Amino acid sequence: MFRTLGQLAACTIIIALTTSAGADESRRALVLSSDFGTTERFVASMKGVALSVDPILQIHDLTHHIEPFNVWQASYMLAGTIDYWPEGTVFVSVVDPGVGTDRKSVVAKTGSGHYVVTPDNGSLTLVADKQGIREIRQIDETINRRPGSESSHTFHGRDVYAFTGARLAAAVIRFEEVGPRLEPTIIRLRYQQPKRLDDGGVVGSITHIEMPFGNVVTNIPRSLVDALGLSPQDKATVFVKISHAGEPVFQQRIPYAQSFGYVDPGAPLLYSDSLQTIGLAVNSGNFAEQYKVQAGADWTIRLTQ
Amino acid sequence: MFRTLGQLAACTIIIALTTSAGADESRRALVLSSDFGTTERFVASMKGVALSVDPILQIHDLTHHIEPFNVWQASYMLAGTIDYWPEGTVFVSVVDPGVGTDRKSVVAKTGSGHYVVTPDNGSLTLVADKQGIREIRQIDETINRRPGSESSHTFHGRDVYAFTGARLAAAVIRFEEVGPRLEPTIIRLRYQQPKRLDDGGVVGSITHIEMPFGNVVTNIPRSLVDALGLSPQDKATVFVKISHAGEPVFQQRIPYAQSFGYVDPGAPLLYSDSLQTIGLAVNSGNFAEQYKVQAGADWTIRLTQ
Amino acid sequence: MFRTLGQLAACTIIIALTTSAGADESRRALVLSSDFGTTERFVASMKGVALSVDPILQIHDLTHHIEPFNVWQASYMLAGTIDYWPEGTVFVSVVDPGVGTDRKSVVAKTGSGHYVVTPDNGSLTLVADKQGIREIRQIDETINRRPGSESSHTFHGRDVYAFTGARLAAAVIRFEEVGPRLEPTIIRLRYQQPKRLDDGGVVGSITHIEMPFGNVVTNIPRSLVDALGLSPQDKATVFVKISHAGEPVFQQRIPYAQSFGYVDPGAPLLYSDSLQTIGLAVNSGNFAEQYKVQAGADWTIRLTQ
Repeated sequence: MFRTLGQLAACTIIIALTTSAGADESRRALVLSSDFGTTERFVASMKGVALSVDPILQIHDLTHHIEPFNVWQASYMLAGTIDYWPEGTVFVSVVDPGVGTDRKSVVAKTGSGHYVVTPDNGSLTLVADKQGIREIRQIDETINRRPGSESSHTFHGRDVYAFTGARLAAAVIRFEEVGPRLEPTIIRLRYQQPKRLDDGGVVGSITHIEMPFGNVVTNIPRSLVDALGLSPQDKATVFVKISHAGEPVFQQRIPYAQSFGYVDPGAPLLYSDSLQTIGLAVNSGNFAEQYKVQAGADWTIRLTQ
Repeated sequence: MFRTLGQLAACTIIIALTTSAGADESRRALVLSSDFGTTERFVASMKGVALSVDPILQIHDLTHHIEPFNVWQASYMLAGTIDYWPEGTVFVSVVDPGVGTDRKSVVAKTGSGHYVVTPDNGSLTLVADKQGIREIRQIDETINRRPGSESSHTFHGRDVYAFTGARLAAAVIRFEEVGPRLEPTIIRLRYQQPKRLDDGGVVGSITHIEMPFGNVVTNIPRSLVDALGLSPQDKATVFVKISHAGEPVFQQRIPYAQSFGYVDPGAPLLYSDSLQTIGLAVNSGNFAEQYKVQAGADWTIRLTQ
Repeated sequence: MFRTLGQLAACTIIIALTTSAGADESRRALVLSSDFGTTERFVASMKGVALSVDPILQIHDLTHHIEPFNVWQASYMLAGTIDYWPEGTVFVSVVDPGVGTDRKSVVAKTGSGHYVVTPDNGSLTLVADKQGIREIRQIDETINRRPGSESSHTFHGRDVYAFTGARLAAAVIRFEEVGPRLEPTIIRLRYQQPKRLDDGGVVGSITHIEMPFGNVVTNIPRSLVDALGLSPQDKATVFVKISHAGEPVFQQRIPYAQSFGYVDPGAPLLYSDSLQTIGLAVNSGNFAEQYKVQAGADWTIRLTQ
């Protein structure tokens, strides 16, 4: 078949280099997110398990400072970060109040071509709404589980999610090998989508408190407020009502200002942030602390003229 | 020797690829642990030194939030994390109250096939008891020390430990080249091993406080308590006495419960955790804070019926 | 040209291996520093953008816990860390109170052969004084900016600095391709250089507060104090005056001691630290908190006999 050793050599080279390039290209970064903090050894255990799957895997942290058990925040962090990472990046998100119960362990392939390995407990809510979900598979723990961990029921983050995420990122398994395909219906946290009301107001959710400043982030696009005929140029005031689980927490008429300096230090304001969504802040202060406002699916905000 | 260039080529290829694969396989991750925090530049300096040894070394963090000078905690973190990492991983643990004194700088090869680079000041105590120690070598600082750092006496974490750890992880040196072999006797923190007492009680140590929840971790296996005829199913109560350096800190009869929800919010309980060891917690509270309990070699716990 | 396939093969190999080795050698680590904290998703977004430039780039953190907007601290962190990293390492430092204004975005090549990507707002002050600056180029944002980010004006750390830093670290661009060369004059924070005064005193700056201990770091070398005829061996006292923006904050005669234990717990002392510079501390206490002292360009210290 090969007429000379030279020809053989040439072929060998090509194959060798292709294999090597292929391995590099099929390997994706693994990005970890959790409510474990960085003081304990939990994150390091997850990374060790991931590197046991593939010793040269790239592992990064999204954040491990999600408020304990706050699934909404887990979702917010994912939806706000995924788009900046290369297609194919594997995110492992472990905020898992239901560990040990029958909540499903899944891998979602997003509309943006990323993967999210997570308990299906609401953490995919904002990802579904922002990146979209193309396909979901349930992790088959008879295969995709750290060997020897079968009797452990409390640290799926390490034994199931980091392990499966690493296998997917390292191309040890393809997405199809995660486990059976599920109907693409996830557990959703119900929250107030931004919309204009018939009575002329606008409603939405408080999606996040930006730390350490305590600025309030909403999901209301500036355009909705523009449509009310309100503009920061007019130095108008807006009546803001914030409710938690239906109970009013903040009710006040405050200025809609171009930036913080337009109100007195310590005074609240409404403004349009860099993403052209509506936010609330206190000039040189902390809105969330001052008014006991938090973020999540059960926090709604209503603006009226 | 080679009859044709083709043959020469074929040989070259094989050698080249072998070298490359060999390099990858001999390179191990370097995992850093310390009480330096992540606010200052100390950890970054250690990483820079390690990458100066080998620019493509994989470096990870165990935690840098060990309580300052708490050698016991350094030991607890190592013993609880090592097993999840690939064999050959090099851990650098720097909690070093004795920097500048004549405490020895060593590398231990564990029974599990990992390496720990550390001052021999007690940080190997729990590693010796859990993973075992196969061999210890003292770092020969005439060789294994950052060039140019000879006159610096205060940051061995960077100049000796990170440097030596990186050389070992990058396979620049073999374990035998760390320095002279020592008798495998380490500095040990003396603590109460779990055991049954003749009078029917059980004693052990408080090994850790799990943050941020303040749950108390002991080294008493559930089986020892089972042997007393106690079971959470019986809703039994147990008399718990916690002492610090011999002085009683907590003495109370509390329920031995299946999980937190079996006691009132704010009430303490004894339970068996996921590793089947005995722990203490307050339902929706913080045991360690509420009862001023800490962890360490001088914290003992005694359970009686 | 090639007489046999064997020769062709041999050449191919050499080229292939050279390319591969070249890629590895030309790739440098990217080190990120900021005031973003690690709770939010900002750092992870920067890393995602960097890995989108080059999926196998090595990314490390200097610290993300710089005090918000504290450009002095950004500068202190860079100058104190750079020397421990391999030549060619690319540092991205984002403490950017002027984001959105016309402050320049630059890459500095230091005298030590490292790169710093940063807004030119003072963050290069101590780098210029310690490592020196060999050349500065302004980032040409028509080329070196994350594609699609043109309308975003608030997160240059991600869209300009991380992106450009990654391109430089990955050797996608050479330093000359960053943008036009600038006069090597940076924005400088003016601070008190250490010097002996004619009246026999010594002045300098408070450059840093070492956390969490609250020890004060100055830029006064021990040699200047030696020259006053003062020595810790003499148990001498020194009159220390610390001023903030010209206003006295601390004025007290305190011991110049060999180490903390030479004064009573809770008492202040002056000492010479491991870098042979003068520091202040409280034995078993926190000098900075106790005396409301901070660090920065407008904090000066004066020592007299």
